[in-house]
Amino acid sequence: MKVGFIGLGNMGSAMARNLIKAGHALMVYNQTKSRAEELRPLGAKVASSPSEAASRAEALITMVTNDDAVEDVIFENGKAIDVLPTGGVHVSMSTISVALSRRLVAAHRERKQHFVAAPVFGRPDAAAAAKLFIAAAGPADQIARCQCLFDAMGQKTFVVGDEAPAANLVKVTANFLITTVIESLGEAFALIRKSGVEPEQFLEVLTGSLFAAPIFRTYGRMIAADNFEPVGFSMVLGMKDNRLVLSAAEDAAVPMPMASLIRDRMLTATAQGMGAADWAAIARISFQEAGL
Amino acid sequence: MKVGFIGLGNMGSAMARNLIKAGHALMVYNQTKSRAEELRPLGAKVASSPSEAASRAEALITMVTNDDAVEDVIFENGKAIDVLPTGGVHVSMSTISVALSRRLVAAHRERKQHFVAAPVFGRPDAAAAAKLFIAAAGPADQIARCQCLFDAMGQKTFVVGDEAPAANLVKVTANFLITTVIESLGEAFALIRKSGVEPEQFLEVLTGSLFAAPIFRTYGRMIAADNFEPVGFSMVLGMKDNRLVLSAAEDAAVPMPMASLIRDRMLTATAQGMGAADWAAIARISFQEAGL
Amino acid sequence: MKVGFIGLGNMGSAMARNLIKAGHALMVYNQTKSRAEELRPLGAKVASSPSEAASRAEALITMVTNDDAVEDVIFENGKAIDVLPTGGVHVSMSTISVALSRRLVAAHRERKQHFVAAPVFGRPDAAAAAKLFIAAAGPADQIARCQCLFDAMGQKTFVVGDEAPAANLVKVTANFLITTVIESLGEAFALIRKSGVEPEQFLEVLTGSLFAAPIFRTYGRMIAADNFEPVGFSMVLGMKDNRLVLSAAEDAAVPMPMASLIRDRMLTATAQGMGAADWAAIARISFQEAGL
Amino acid sequence: MKVGFIGLGNMGSAMARNLIKAGHALMVYNQTKSRAEELRPLGAKVASSPSEAASRAEALITMVTNDDAVEDVIFENGKAIDVLPTGGVHVSMSTISVALSRRLVAAHRERKQHFVAAPVFGRPDAAAAAKLFIAAAGPADQIARCQCLFDAMGQKTFVVGDEAPAANLVKVTANFLITTVIESLGEAFALIRKSGVEPEQFLEVLTGSLFAAPIFRTYGRMIAADNFEPVGFSMVLGMKDNRLVLSAAEDAAVPMPMASLIRDRMLTATAQGMGAADWAAIARISFQEAGL
Repeated sequence: MKVGFIGLGNMGSAMARNLIKAGHALMVYNQTKSRAEELRPLGAKVASSPSEAASRAEALITMVTNDDAVEDVIFENGKAIDVLPTGGVHVSMSTISVALSRRLVAAHRERKQHFVAAPVFGRPDAAAAAKLFIAAAGPADQIARCQCLFDAMGQKTFVVGDEAPAANLVKVTANFLITTVIESLGEAFALIRKSGVEPEQFLEVLTGSLFAAPIFRTYGRMIAADNFEPVGFSMVLGMKDNRLVLSAAEDAAVPMPMASLIRDRMLTATAQGMGAADWAAIARISFQEAGL
Repeated sequence: MKVGFIGLGNMGSAMARNLIKAGHALMVYNQTKSRAEELRPLGAKVASSPSEAASRAEALITMVTNDDAVEDVIFENGKAIDVLPTGGVHVSMSTISVALSRRLVAAHRERKQHFVAAPVFGRPDAAAAAKLFIAAAGPADQIARCQCLFDAMGQKTFVVGDEAPAANLVKVTANFLITTVIESLGEAFALIRKSGVEPEQFLEVLTGSLFAAPIFRTYGRMIAADNFEPVGFSMVLGMKDNRLVLSAAEDAAVPMPMASLIRDRMLTATAQGMGAADWAAIARISFQEAGL
Repeated sequence: MKVGFIGLGNMGSAMARNLIKAGHALMVYNQTKSRAEELRPLGAKVASSPSEAASRAEALITMVTNDDAVEDVIFENGKAIDVLPTGGVHVSMSTISVALSRRLVAAHRERKQHFVAAPVFGRPDAAAAAKLFIAAAGPADQIARCQCLFDAMGQKTFVVGDEAPAANLVKVTANFLITTVIESLGEAFALIRKSGVEPEQFLEVLTGSLFAAPIFRTYGRMIAADNFEPVGFSMVLGMKDNRLVLSAAEDAAVPMPMASLIRDRMLTATAQGMGAADWAAIARISFQEAGL
Repeated sequence: MKVGFIGLGNMGSAMARNLIKAGHALMVYNQTKSRAEELRPLGAKVASSPSEAASRAEALITMVTNDDAVEDVIFENGKAIDVLPTGGVHVSMSTISVALSRRLVAAHRERKQHFVAAPVFGRPDAAAAAKLFIAAAGPADQIARCQCLFDAMGQKTFVVGDEAPAANLVKVTANFLITTVIESLGEAFALIRKSGVEPEQFLEVLTGSLFAAPIFRTYGRMIAADNFEPVGFSMVLGMKDNRLVLSAAEDAAVPMPMASLIRDRMLTATAQGMGAADWAAIARISFQEAGL
């Protein structure tokens, strides 16, 4: 399939490589061009602008930092939407707002293009291993059309509805759940450590019993060891995601006290110089508060 | 093994049955005698007092409601501690306070008896299926001695240290984590439902990906369906457990804002007549607040 | 003084009347024209557009709903900034964001106009009685120039700095404090009422002792009586103000857990149909939660 | 009047002096005897035990640290209740639990003694100046009988009901309101300071307008200056009072999220070595979190 791919950060770069491996014809674009050039030896063409990446694509994948970046490449400077061929599909895989997703649905429809929201779950190592989970929403035929792409990047695709914004809501809500797991583990390990119980033993009980899920293993290990390196997902991006869920919840008039608490934790972490740390480092706030 | 077993509620009764099945000689006691009589046809002897259950036991298991009940059978009316034979081991499997566990360590030591804390994870159906998880702490030789009992009741035993109160701390902290999962799912599903996404589809994404743990499946199902029957663990008991973790955290000077939030949720639920409901029904508070 | 006055809601209308009474020459504008016409018999001229109101003003006062409304009359549709005479001063008395205030400082400077931020404290009755408190910031000479206007509308002017945004920050932070008083009284009276103590007696203790401030009297009376009519300041406006303080705090990386709590309370109130109620009605959430 | 006075801390000592000045015959008791001896030159008799102080009293005032101390002097070691003459009145002026107040009502009634709860508002300087506010509850004739005592110690007495525990509830609830003022000011000044506005100017706006109450002046000054010396009321006592309101609220099934937040703040302060600091120092947590 002819794929335009915009956004080659830690996640996007790994995803693009897996698409190339699966035999798709990629034209890639990234703001910092060197990251795009790395893919040329693997067989990708390198576009000099978002619109060049879009202009001959059957599918245009965006995997960029945030709403602003999507707006920039699709509508503003990039104007990719003006050149994506009729009948082409824009597959937005970034974590973006429900509101922007609604805008994209309308804008693509107007131009007789298609839009699928397909945000992903997993950190860079999962992206590299083609083990992402993908939550996709949009017209059923378009999702079917993109299935071969999803299969190249992920281990499983969940279809959560035929209206694209549903996938974005599912994504930001699931990300909220991740942050609650992090925060709850931070508080739990603060108590466990300060009471003199071995953190590793506590973690073993958790992940060996009711809490036997990747989410508890991944974050439990970091928090039990009080070691948040390497950075898989930064606090700055975490705050963005927290804003997305709070914003969706505000639009729907749904109070979410745990999301508010996470917001305060992340602001505290930022104020204390942890903006570039892994978002799991909010557990450190619990440790500090407890005097550990 | 000659086992005295005190406390035949939903959990205790199932556990005692599994011990009988495994060939142990049980003398059981329960405040409401009829529940004890039910075990007689299976081969148990029925004691007329806690001390009768304790008097000839190699191991005395207590599985009662709360600290007060343990104090009552062991120290006060029951006075089981006065008759448990020298060298006998008291295995406390209830969820009790770290403080009471410390008192029991000292009291049994004084009388040349042993004490093991071995609280369990799992709801009544897991108890019936001998699928409990057991977190045990105490002298290594005593835990080894009780392993055959644990094997009859549970699917796995975690040894979390040689000081009994460590197991109680692990238990109340893990229970705190369960409540955070419930609350976070309540908030998440409030947003999902009010935004018009199918709760079942969201749950499928969660339990099919990063959140593939029993805890998310069990509570996710209840909350997605907004159906909290039958009651597996009541709000009243949940509040007790919440008090236990807050009390351990206060003693250690560890602030736990999520535990505070859970406390407020449970008080709200109680004020609104949900004291006898399953503790997962705190999700209903999120639904109500969102106007669902 | 020749004053352009834009925004004749409950507050603005009362303020404009007091300026007329004090002998100032007013040209007033309001989106709903009938509210402007009411002032004509008192001596005001009625402008047909924001720019007409601004075009001959020495001082242009804006007292409109929110940031969007200020942007609309000053920059966008209204374009008042294009016609305000050189040397004229824009006195922004609405509660607006610190960010917009910064933008106004720059935009007016560019056009050789002046800008003073002078948000007010007080509800409509205080505005009618010329008893507002005014927090003003901006160039000292411009504040001095506007003092005669402030004196006509308020009982006291506080100068909080020579950079206009300082006044906006002071205002949104003080409004935050008002909401904390409301919320704390809601919780306190929930406990008092449910425990069978007379709310009036409790209020008398408060306002007769350490809490002898207008803020406790005004809101204490409403909350003790569980009567939030008439609406002095609506929940919708309260949410706007809450967003302003949370946004300023986010920009400065300052976590404010009480502001987060207020946000959740207001969202709950909104979800339950109290969007048009007085913002003090968040106390009702405390009453409901307590089962009153 | 013949007054037994038990408890000569910073508060009690000042109150006792004012009673002596007003001409009452005091027999005083304090655990650390030297503090009692200081009152001998002023005319007080010094008792060697709580029961000696009670044995000939018409009114027995207790002004001790907490519930435990009251129980100790009245019921346990002190046994003052066994010797207080028939018809004598015990005036409990400490901040104690609603639950203990209920117990005292019953215990004194049984012995044909009277009980009045009359907790006070004000810090040691107010006590010294006889400027305390007193919230009294109990039988009307007994309050009338004690009025001359209250007049000697306070500037105003509020009668809040004829059931003594009402006064204790009023006291712990009002103390909760004090803590919310402290916390809200902590958050507000964190934002103000980090944004570069002068704290003193902000405080002047507050106390010169809607927030013109002693509570905002007293704590605003400390927090604006980030100076919490001298210690008027310690964190340890503050935590006690927080526990009292949370406990009363739990008994009544009333969730109080702000009280929960204060609890977490005080635990954090304690964990960070501020247990002996003034309770207003919880504002420091807000400053630290903001990176100030």
